[in-house]
Amino acid sequence: MRIAVLSPVAWRTPPLHYGPWESVVSLLTEELIRMGVDVTLFATGDSQTSGKLVAVCPRPYSEDHSVDPKVAECLHISEVFERCADYDLIHNHFDFLPLTYSGLVKTPLLTTIHGFSSPKIMPVYKKYNARGYYVAISESDKSPELNYIATIHHGIDLAQFPFSEADGNYLLFFGRIHPDKGVFEAIQVAQRVGIKLVIAGIVQDQDYFATKVEPHIDGVTVEYLGSIGPDRRADVLGGALALLHLISFDEPFGLSLIESMACGTPVIAFDRGSMPELIRPGITGYIVESIESAIDAVAAIKEIDRSECRTDVEQRFTSTRMARDYVRIYEEILTGEAHDN
Amino acid sequence: MRIAVLSPVAWRTPPLHYGPWESVVSLLTEELIRMGVDVTLFATGDSQTSGKLVAVCPRPYSEDHSVDPKVAECLHISEVFERCADYDLIHNHFDFLPLTYSGLVKTPLLTTIHGFSSPKIMPVYKKYNARGYYVAISESDKSPELNYIATIHHGIDLAQFPFSEADGNYLLFFGRIHPDKGVFEAIQVAQRVGIKLVIAGIVQDQDYFATKVEPHIDGVTVEYLGSIGPDRRADVLGGALALLHLISFDEPFGLSLIESMACGTPVIAFDRGSMPELIRPGITGYIVESIESAIDAVAAIKEIDRSECRTDVEQRFTSTRMARDYVRIYEEILTGEAHDN
Repeated sequence: MRIAVLSPVAWRTPPLHYGPWESVVSLLTEELIRMGVDVTLFATGDSQTSGKLVAVCPRPYSEDHSVDPKVAECLHISEVFERCADYDLIHNHFDFLPLTYSGLVKTPLLTTIHGFSSPKIMPVYKKYNARGYYVAISESDKSPELNYIATIHHGIDLAQFPFSEADGNYLLFFGRIHPDKGVFEAIQVAQRVGIKLVIAGIVQDQDYFATKVEPHIDGVTVEYLGSIGPDRRADVLGGALALLHLISFDEPFGLSLIESMACGTPVIAFDRGSMPELIRPGITGYIVESIESAIDAVAAIKEIDRSECRTDVEQRFTSTRMARDYVRIYEEILTGEAHDN
Repeated sequence: MRIAVLSPVAWRTPPLHYGPWESVVSLLTEELIRMGVDVTLFATGDSQTSGKLVAVCPRPYSEDHSVDPKVAECLHISEVFERCADYDLIHNHFDFLPLTYSGLVKTPLLTTIHGFSSPKIMPVYKKYNARGYYVAISESDKSPELNYIATIHHGIDLAQFPFSEADGNYLLFFGRIHPDKGVFEAIQVAQRVGIKLVIAGIVQDQDYFATKVEPHIDGVTVEYLGSIGPDRRADVLGGALALLHLISFDEPFGLSLIESMACGTPVIAFDRGSMPELIRPGITGYIVESIESAIDAVAAIKEIDRSECRTDVEQRFTSTRMARDYVRIYEEILTGEAHDN
């Protein structure tokens, strides 16, 4: 089975800092290769893979302002279609533009929809709904206007997230510094319960950081680590008492949640988007409705058995499970057994 | 000969106000249809054509903010390629993105390059240089890195621009209000020679208009008409003593110049871009190097015979001539005689 995997070129695959789509592509391709699938990764030239790499863009356009993103995108995307005779299937992780080339080739295109950046992109997904094969990354992210061949939750490489048995002594915010992600809400909860908050992640909204976050950073009650790389990630996640994920948007998936649970750290999240699919209330964390109930959840966090968090990820969220799910879908499409569900 | 003509969807074809690419597409398609060519125009749904219209976008994305331009573009472009079996040739007027679909179909793609918005778009033109058929709109706009099948100057419909024999009593600026276009330079020249300046065109740079143009508008020495539609265009152009085109960029072509000359009004332009290809110095206007020499040119403008301006456009810049040039290229490509020059 020869699979071309099309990654975005906004960031490296896997990303150095931020880039959830590129992260998932890397986890999937590495696992597919371990399973013996013939994988060619289409990504930036500085990407890393155990398989074959085809790169049109030497570097991510987010890091190279000499490059026009639209130019990088269309050259990257057309390359995989121009080489489509070499592959049994193209697996697209780069949003809607690749769909518009799919009607011109015979090679089937499978598209993992990593989220809808805007309702304005729906016309493309709707046009290719009949012949496109769409995979949702959570039930909550499914559009009622589209047909999906499957819902496949992301999975992680457990080896990168060792289990940490001991309860930590700080609460953790882990993700982009952006109002959507609820950094300010996490600060409020931490201050009310009198437990230190550690914040890790890139600043995506500078105004929000300057007005709502930075004034609270004193290094004692609130500490900001900046963006942390893969080398420190497991320590920071595993050392926490709980992860606070008090989001104000319908997040289609949350990789950081399953990374946290893999390390044994339970999650307290607002009831938005995919949260009920990722968290088992009372077992791997709590789903809450308000700052008040988040405070109650912190008080009750020691009732969570950290080893249950690990076990749940081992059972539901490994990259091995994710890759097997995708291989089953590849086979369905290639044997003509695919049908919408 | 079945030709699909791909127009931009930024504006209607033909445009209501501004939109030089869409203007040229309309002039060309109407003339091709008169010549008996089987033309299908791919443009916005509110476009007007004597031929067949295929529209994916009901309205121009520049006028409809519920639409994502990238979504409109890729759905519009993919539509013509998905229908390519119905056409002998696709004639692209919509920049570089269509090239990236051209490798996936057998129908040849001819691309008129209406200008390079940035050096960052060159990688696409370079990639498709070997199999793409490129037409330059002037010799001056040719990139030394690309192969061209022809240079074809634009042409206009003379019926829309009747000849006006009498010398006018005002100088005219006609075009986008933008520093590139030299509105402020035209004001300086008009003030120095003591002749009224009439300005017509959309404001594209609001700061420039507010600081460099608006303070001079008194309705007597400098008058601003706003954007004027096709109904008043010939009167405004034909009534002028001269058109001032004191540009500070390498304009690849200037439709307003040939429209002006068709009405009998000579042109005074700075020596940039395609100006030497459009103006015959001493016959249809003057090419100048500075504000001082523009002032001298205004003083000498009555030496220009207005009927010579008309004659030159009749000989070199009609839409009939343009369409015949394109049909010759279509035939070369379709009979396999095409070669780069």
